[in-house]
Amino acid sequence: MNATIITIGDEILIGQIVDTNSVSIARQLNEAGIVVHEKCSIGDDADEIVRTLRRAMAVSQVVVLTGGLGPTKDDITKKTLASLFGGGMRFDEEVAAHVERMLTARGIDYNALNRSQAEVPVCCTVLFNRHGTAPGMWFEEAGCVVVSLPGVPFEMEHLMREEVMPRLKAHFALRQIVHRTLITSGLAESVLAKRIEAWEEALPPYLKLAYLPSAGVVRLRLSAYEVDGERIGREIEERFAELQRLIPAYVVGFETATVEEQVHRMLTERGETLAVAESCTGGRIASKFTAMAGASAYFRAGIVSYANEAKTTLLGVDADLIRRCGAVSEEVARAMAEGARRVAGADYALSTTGIAGPAGGTEEKPVGTVWMALATPERTLAVRQACGTDRGQVIDRASAFAIRLLRDELQRRSR
Amino acid sequence: MNATIITIGDEILIGQIVDTNSVSIARQLNEAGIVVHEKCSIGDDADEIVRTLRRAMAVSQVVVLTGGLGPTKDDITKKTLASLFGGGMRFDEEVAAHVERMLTARGIDYNALNRSQAEVPVCCTVLFNRHGTAPGMWFEEAGCVVVSLPGVPFEMEHLMREEVMPRLKAHFALRQIVHRTLITSGLAESVLAKRIEAWEEALPPYLKLAYLPSAGVVRLRLSAYEVDGERIGREIEERFAELQRLIPAYVVGFETATVEEQVHRMLTERGETLAVAESCTGGRIASKFTAMAGASAYFRAGIVSYANEAKTTLLGVDADLIRRCGAVSEEVARAMAEGARRVAGADYALSTTGIAGPAGGTEEKPVGTVWMALATPERTLAVRQACGTDRGQVIDRASAFAIRLLRDELQRRSR
Repeated sequence: MNATIITIGDEILIGQIVDTNSVSIARQLNEAGIVVHEKCSIGDDADEIVRTLRRAMAVSQVVVLTGGLGPTKDDITKKTLASLFGGGMRFDEEVAAHVERMLTARGIDYNALNRSQAEVPVCCTVLFNRHGTAPGMWFEEAGCVVVSLPGVPFEMEHLMREEVMPRLKAHFALRQIVHRTLITSGLAESVLAKRIEAWEEALPPYLKLAYLPSAGVVRLRLSAYEVDGERIGREIEERFAELQRLIPAYVVGFETATVEEQVHRMLTERGETLAVAESCTGGRIASKFTAMAGASAYFRAGIVSYANEAKTTLLGVDADLIRRCGAVSEEVARAMAEGARRVAGADYALSTTGIAGPAGGTEEKPVGTVWMALATPERTLAVRQACGTDRGQVIDRASAFAIRLLRDELQRRSR
Repeated sequence: MNATIITIGDEILIGQIVDTNSVSIARQLNEAGIVVHEKCSIGDDADEIVRTLRRAMAVSQVVVLTGGLGPTKDDITKKTLASLFGGGMRFDEEVAAHVERMLTARGIDYNALNRSQAEVPVCCTVLFNRHGTAPGMWFEEAGCVVVSLPGVPFEMEHLMREEVMPRLKAHFALRQIVHRTLITSGLAESVLAKRIEAWEEALPPYLKLAYLPSAGVVRLRLSAYEVDGERIGREIEERFAELQRLIPAYVVGFETATVEEQVHRMLTERGETLAVAESCTGGRIASKFTAMAGASAYFRAGIVSYANEAKTTLLGVDADLIRRCGAVSEEVARAMAEGARRVAGADYALSTTGIAGPAGGTEEKPVGTVWMALATPERTLAVRQACGTDRGQVIDRASAFAIRLLRDELQRRSR
């Protein structure tokens, strides 16, 4: 069962917004066993909508469109679908009453433009949008299901989850898609590929392996599309277990678990606490931990000691030490971690100090040079790491390395 | 001049990653006067790549592909392009030497898989990738330019900016695309549309108006595609000024420059400095500023005072005050901002303290309640803001609100 996702809106084509709708739609279709064959973004142009939709319907039995359902002149999806599928428009009293109620509650005039949101093509089934004013629409045509949803992410999300998916599951007899993802760290993509070469060669043709490298991590995804669930489910689990046995020391997690999630879990379970002192990573590490619900159980404090004086005032790093060794040095990284641990009264403290660039690099310490340290109740570790050449990359990688340093130490201590 | 962007990778189709590459590419093409006609995401499948590329070349003179250039078996873009455009492969010594140097510096084995990255189609021009191991490729075929770039965002970004755009500008005689965006707040989309109806009706056909509603804000974008720059430039400015005069009280900003970029520029120009004290935003604000090159000129320090004791130890907030008023209160927000300003020796300091959720909400202070304060040389402002119901959303919105508070104050002071 194939699907095509079409997102409509000039704002996507000029790069004014990031399209997250298609990500969420793809994920939900996948979970239900529907293979997304293609994603397409086109402008608010009737001919283009018709052309793309026809092409999609030739290869996919499910087409999901988002966008272009607002009340203003630039929104043309509804009219275009009505004239393509035929039968004219009708006025939906239930939608009209809902739109009026919603607007009145928000103190907004119910005018002709809003009333027009209750006009729907005669040939569609209305998907009632509890969270917004533009209804979703479900068309059945030539063996295909075409669904049109509003582009506002949380309205689309609710309609997809509560209306579209249950209907698709009832309408089609769906098969299964199985994905398993192994998260590895410590081996470059090419080295990892060599290490598991024989295993990869021996995979049956219906199991697909993908490498997804990102800062400090390579994810390996094993996928089977539209299979007989039970047998393939067992097979994929066996292959997955073999894979883990090939590289036990490099496995850091499964599916989408991140290294910070591992640390979060370990610290929470042990009742231990954390502080961070960041220079080049500028708050990124603190931000990764505090983004997780429950972080307040262990996260004591973060200090972004960007200026040298802040390292001295806030962390008690000796100003002479900074002068003598430089802010980017093993000595200062250690003093920052120990200072953070002390001032925050935490069990562990991580620190980073480095040259994020683009300026500030030297022959001896080029852009990307980062010293990081971890202070624990027993000792302080320090590591120097080359974290790339681009500012964003240096911040990403240094944060990932530092968190990994903590994870490794926590794992060592638990043995 | 039309362009098609094709992003390649199964991970996009299953919703495992958000495609930000095409956003950045679209923006750069647009700025140079190239109209992005369509964006497409397809899987790592040779037939599909060929089919999509052929279709794109029939309607666009510029096709940019990303992804599928890694060293592993699932990366097939290079081979597919070589066989489509013909001529076989050659070994590029310069790329090989660069790959070896890069890997050696990172302590990674230079093996057969990595060496294969230096294999390039004979018929392409190599776009040298200083920041990674997969080279970009430039093909000219049947009047079209086809560019293939690696999918790692910052590698793609550098190649696009430093190699692709200068070459496209030299290769084609490009016309202009002009966009002006007015950011409004306080009028619902439908009410706004009614308010500016006569102005919209009177727009000439080559000026296109788009409505882009999002949380609390409606952006109005006026666009002219591939025009004679000077005359249309004047025309669009006049219409844009008329539009502003229709809704002066609802205009909150222009274009897509982020608020933190505005603050970055203002502080840098004035030689003034900033500190932040974050509780619920957990380092996000510090991280937004320090992500920008040159932030060290004004960013002194950030304190993520997550635990109450950290508010006292690091920022000097009276422990009694916290007990009396609660950590999420106007008084504590003010004391945090003033404390951060003092300990960091900065001209301005921002603070946030709130309930990010999912736990911790009460009747009086539900999840999403955030107090934020700004301490300046003359006074301290404080604002309470409801920032939503989802943890990620609360952190995002609270960070955005706080930075906007600073931007508004900086603008007031410059008048």
